[in-house]
Amino acid sequence: MSHIASLQQWLANNGTDIAYINDPMSIQYFTGFESDPIERVMALFVFADQDPFLFTPALEVEAAKDTGWKYPVYGYLDHEDAFAIIQSEINKRQNSPKKWAIEKGSLTVERYDAIRRIFPSAEFVADATGFIETLKVIKTPDEIEKLKVAGKWADIAFEVGFKALQEGKTEQDIVAEIEYAMKKQGIMHMSFDTIVQSGKNAAEPHGFPKKDLIQPNALTLFDLGVISDGYISDASRTVAFGKPNEKSLEIHKVCLEAQLTAQAAAKPGMIAEDLDKIARDIIVNAGYGQYFIHRLGHGMGQSEHEFPSIMEGNKMELKPGMCFSIEPGIYIPGVAGVRIEDCIYLTENGNEPFTVTPKTLKTIELH
Amino acid sequence: MSHIASLQQWLANNGTDIAYINDPMSIQYFTGFESDPIERVMALFVFADQDPFLFTPALEVEAAKDTGWKYPVYGYLDHEDAFAIIQSEINKRQNSPKKWAIEKGSLTVERYDAIRRIFPSAEFVADATGFIETLKVIKTPDEIEKLKVAGKWADIAFEVGFKALQEGKTEQDIVAEIEYAMKKQGIMHMSFDTIVQSGKNAAEPHGFPKKDLIQPNALTLFDLGVISDGYISDASRTVAFGKPNEKSLEIHKVCLEAQLTAQAAAKPGMIAEDLDKIARDIIVNAGYGQYFIHRLGHGMGQSEHEFPSIMEGNKMELKPGMCFSIEPGIYIPGVAGVRIEDCIYLTENGNEPFTVTPKTLKTIELH
Repeated sequence: MSHIASLQQWLANNGTDIAYINDPMSIQYFTGFESDPIERVMALFVFADQDPFLFTPALEVEAAKDTGWKYPVYGYLDHEDAFAIIQSEINKRQNSPKKWAIEKGSLTVERYDAIRRIFPSAEFVADATGFIETLKVIKTPDEIEKLKVAGKWADIAFEVGFKALQEGKTEQDIVAEIEYAMKKQGIMHMSFDTIVQSGKNAAEPHGFPKKDLIQPNALTLFDLGVISDGYISDASRTVAFGKPNEKSLEIHKVCLEAQLTAQAAAKPGMIAEDLDKIARDIIVNAGYGQYFIHRLGHGMGQSEHEFPSIMEGNKMELKPGMCFSIEPGIYIPGVAGVRIEDCIYLTENGNEPFTVTPKTLKTIELH
Repeated sequence: MSHIASLQQWLANNGTDIAYINDPMSIQYFTGFESDPIERVMALFVFADQDPFLFTPALEVEAAKDTGWKYPVYGYLDHEDAFAIIQSEINKRQNSPKKWAIEKGSLTVERYDAIRRIFPSAEFVADATGFIETLKVIKTPDEIEKLKVAGKWADIAFEVGFKALQEGKTEQDIVAEIEYAMKKQGIMHMSFDTIVQSGKNAAEPHGFPKKDLIQPNALTLFDLGVISDGYISDASRTVAFGKPNEKSLEIHKVCLEAQLTAQAAAKPGMIAEDLDKIARDIIVNAGYGQYFIHRLGHGMGQSEHEFPSIMEGNKMELKPGMCFSIEPGIYIPGVAGVRIEDCIYLTENGNEPFTVTPKTLKTIELH
């Protein structure tokens, strides 16, 4: 069933007439059209028993049609009243629909008020945010192919980053080298700000690359990913630059065991929080539990903010087609930090990773 | 008066008890704290007659305090109910405030519902979005200093881009060189995706850099800017690579005259749309009116989506401290495109630009 057909069925099952889809990522998911019109109005209207239509700024109408979206696309010029056009197009299909689904997690109050103004008797009976998150959680084979391509680029990015590690360079220099190499090959967007952190800087999991020199005889942490054809990659490796101290080597060893064990265990039928526990137990038993201060993983696909969350308290059952990260980390303030991460997709019986760069501790000689 | 004090005065003048500020850029504007917590809750609560407080994810509390914000910062952990903590902190200051201001342009329905749930008798009597846009439109001397620094980086970026123009390179290659040079100097974020478009590609003002080779004997358009200390730059130059044809030279000449004339005219007391008309008349009279398909300029500061809009229909009076772009363009489909842009700030009697890269047609020899 197509994504749109699934949404239409959900609308029908919930006695809902119409859905107002406004999140640009949801619109991309349902239509294939990728755009972020910032303050301008972009909206997809999906009916339980009529064909949907897409509404965009006038300048984007042709681009939207070019994506292969087979239903109508309407546009508006800056001086036109977008919601008057929307009202007219909706009424042509279904006069003053009553039961609405909206994306409460992303729709602004301003746009919500605009709908209430043009359809004063509208009732907002369903929140599409949760349904779309659940729909997105199982990736199609086509989506998995796109995620594999994005993963290959992450592997290439690691190779560039490892080669760039040299004394006298800063963390920001290494980021510059990685993103330069990607752009030279036509990958114009990273999926998030590339992280390169050396020595004790890596103990800040919410930190960012600094002007600090790469520390010799210490660990360096890389966390990176690209956007390719609307889908992302996200992976982390921690390498030795020269000879790190014993404590650094030990936390890498523990983190690696946690990562490999959890990744080997991940398969359909498991409960999300149980997977987190597999990795966490290893780190806790090694005495580093207090330094593993985030969940084991997050879902991913169009972004790294999708379901399923691999964390304590999440009782979601894992199923084939789910894609998520497995990224234990150990961060000892003032000493060192390590994080090792692959994103994987669940097959019928197990899982496959999107990135294949070796995870055993790689040593880059000082030079 | 501080930004916060201005907001408090506005609340008092409007008989409003409390403002819920949720837009990360507004929070940065009022507190100095720069963060985008994505799906997590970050909020600033400002009272008409009490001190404000900031609320962030627990991991960000220390960083928020480090910015110099002198009022309380409270945090929440992922498993805690953010709005229960917010409710408690608000009630300590003012029990169940009735009259609320919210940012309708950015607050989601989900968060709006959360406030209605914890304060069922709340009335949402004021929209802070417009007030904040109006407050932001006059930049302080400190903000103008930051915008000047960002502008200097744009000038450096042009220099890099012009040097990188060579036969055999693609548009994307030049983007890669520019952004690499910025990162190597510690400028980790561009304010938007850098645009480099050559030959007829430049005739698509909403296009993006391609794998196409830079065309010899044609115009190449650059549009770029950086983020520095939370403030942006944004500038465009169009250069000749070799010897462009007559038509290309002519549209550059007309566009340059429009840009220089409008920039020389911009001063306090003018009406925004009149400034647009000064540039537009020159392009229309030269016979290219149909190819100047966007407004003359946009306000800028923390982003390029601020007031004042320099366009037909905007009757806003220009005042000292306003910052905006002056960027006429002429785009002839299938032939060539040109855009020339400085951002400026209005002084008491005139204006000063943030970028100084020469605007007369620069020729880069083929090599």
